[in-house]
Amino acid sequence: MSPDSPIIVLDSGLGGLTVVRALRNVLPGEDILYFGDTARLPYGSKTGATVTGFVQQIIAYLRPYDAKHVVIACNTATALSLPAVRTTFPGLSISGVIEPGAKAATAAAGAKQVPTIAVLATEATIRSKAYERAIHRRRLHARMLLRPAPLLVPIIEEGRDATDPLVRLALQQYLGPLLTHHMDVLVLGCTHYPVYKELICKIVGNAVRVIDSAEQCADDVARRLKIRKLLNDAGPADGTAGQDSPGREQPPRSGQLRCFVTDDPARFQRLAPRFLGVAIDKPAWVAPDELYGHAAPDGGGRLSVPA
Amino acid sequence: MSPDSPIIVLDSGLGGLTVVRALRNVLPGEDILYFGDTARLPYGSKTGATVTGFVQQIIAYLRPYDAKHVVIACNTATALSLPAVRTTFPGLSISGVIEPGAKAATAAAGAKQVPTIAVLATEATIRSKAYERAIHRRRLHARMLLRPAPLLVPIIEEGRDATDPLVRLALQQYLGPLLTHHMDVLVLGCTHYPVYKELICKIVGNAVRVIDSAEQCADDVARRLKIRKLLNDAGPADGTAGQDSPGREQPPRSGQLRCFVTDDPARFQRLAPRFLGVAIDKPAWVAPDELYGHAAPDGGGRLSVPA
Repeated sequence: MSPDSPIIVLDSGLGGLTVVRALRNVLPGEDILYFGDTARLPYGSKTGATVTGFVQQIIAYLRPYDAKHVVIACNTATALSLPAVRTTFPGLSISGVIEPGAKAATAAAGAKQVPTIAVLATEATIRSKAYERAIHRRRLHARMLLRPAPLLVPIIEEGRDATDPLVRLALQQYLGPLLTHHMDVLVLGCTHYPVYKELICKIVGNAVRVIDSAEQCADDVARRLKIRKLLNDAGPADGTAGQDSPGREQPPRSGQLRCFVTDDPARFQRLAPRFLGVAIDKPAWVAPDELYGHAAPDGGGRLSVPA
Repeated sequence: MSPDSPIIVLDSGLGGLTVVRALRNVLPGEDILYFGDTARLPYGSKTGATVTGFVQQIIAYLRPYDAKHVVIACNTATALSLPAVRTTFPGLSISGVIEPGAKAATAAAGAKQVPTIAVLATEATIRSKAYERAIHRRRLHARMLLRPAPLLVPIIEEGRDATDPLVRLALQQYLGPLLTHHMDVLVLGCTHYPVYKELICKIVGNAVRVIDSAEQCADDVARRLKIRKLLNDAGPADGTAGQDSPGREQPPRSGQLRCFVTDDPARFQRLAPRFLGVAIDKPAWVAPDELYGHAAPDGGGRLSVPA
């Protein structure tokens, strides 16, 4: 692999595109392969064994692209599968969204002796206790409030915007109990949730710092690539560009985004701008059974019985 | 196969248990194998090619049980896959939930010249036009109102009951536009929805006949088995029962229910009584990759590109 190699970003569906958006802001020159497992979404209500199998299959399927880094851009998949997936692919650099989110949350909590940090996430992420562990490693005395919000992903995937009374009611139901406990920090522990960030900030008020793990995750990837001297800052991809405008500074090389989905490329293409901010080309379709043909060398990708 | 052979009932998750409940009322002596594809649910937002592949794999996987009938107890799967699945398994008796529901809806519409029949269902079921076709075959001049309700399945799977204000708001949002059109009949076009039947009846009022396709589907299965002389009315399974209570009539033979799921057997067992009315034994777990190993003889079960 080289600085020219792509970065893989994977998620159950569309939510991980908020991480792609943040990555493209920080690292505009990087080529990105995005994989949305739309035939098997959502991950948030499923078990660790099942989700780990899905993630192992996706990474094994994309191995031929020789990626320099893999981002698990889904809180559920990070919480349930990251350690297992690192063991399955020992030569591969892999990161998730939870450690960066936890780091930002503890920083935002400031100097308070016992800050209250709330996490809004899927059922599976909450059940995994991954945020609790990651935050308590940094701030032993933080008080944690954990709130599963199973409906938010389906509500967002239905395309409802923040003016819909049902969106407001659902957010009030999920955030209300947290508000009575006077939280200092609220972590949006799912890459879908930034779509409603403005409304969430309004409901919780100015006194609460809202952490969006997508941005933190992108900074973390940039830091990792810089340490490994694998940043793609090779200048413009098209060597002729400079000849037309001598004396002007070269624009940064524009990285390519290529998307793969396991179901309904047209729907994915239609909804993507909501998460990414810009339109995308039609994604390639990968049949779920092609994934099963790409088990990892140690048998990763074969599923074992859920606990 | 014989009258002792089991009936297979399959669904993406829990909803098909409303069909099992109705089947056990009509046919208490039948053994039932229930398959809930919980690792890949929901089906309602996915394409025909993907859902057809899933259903073919499940039926192929259960072939060794030599079932006398297969019920696709999911409106989405019926709408998207029934004709293709019948072609894949030509020797197998297979039925769905849409034809029985359409038959009951047109009967309920009575003598009115141009009745208005509304269908509340998943996005995929509505998009398939399966209800429109099935109803118009019987009543050419029925006026159809079709309403996708993508959030209802996730709301029901979250375990919210009918007293929750969000349930009421979602139902009012989905049913409101139908009410302004003065429907005569409302078809609950998803096997999950009967869980809120009482509240739905209250919202639409007494003038609207509400059709629950689970009951119609069970009657249809009974009729099919009777014609084929495959009803299991063999009397008590335990021949000694009568010896303890001479003179008393034998209780009907009690059929067994055995469940298979692709994810989280414990969650399925916990939520099942909400749909079935009674508790169940812990389901067996089937890894999704075992299903991919059971493609049908003609290649059914391999997926092809979604339209």
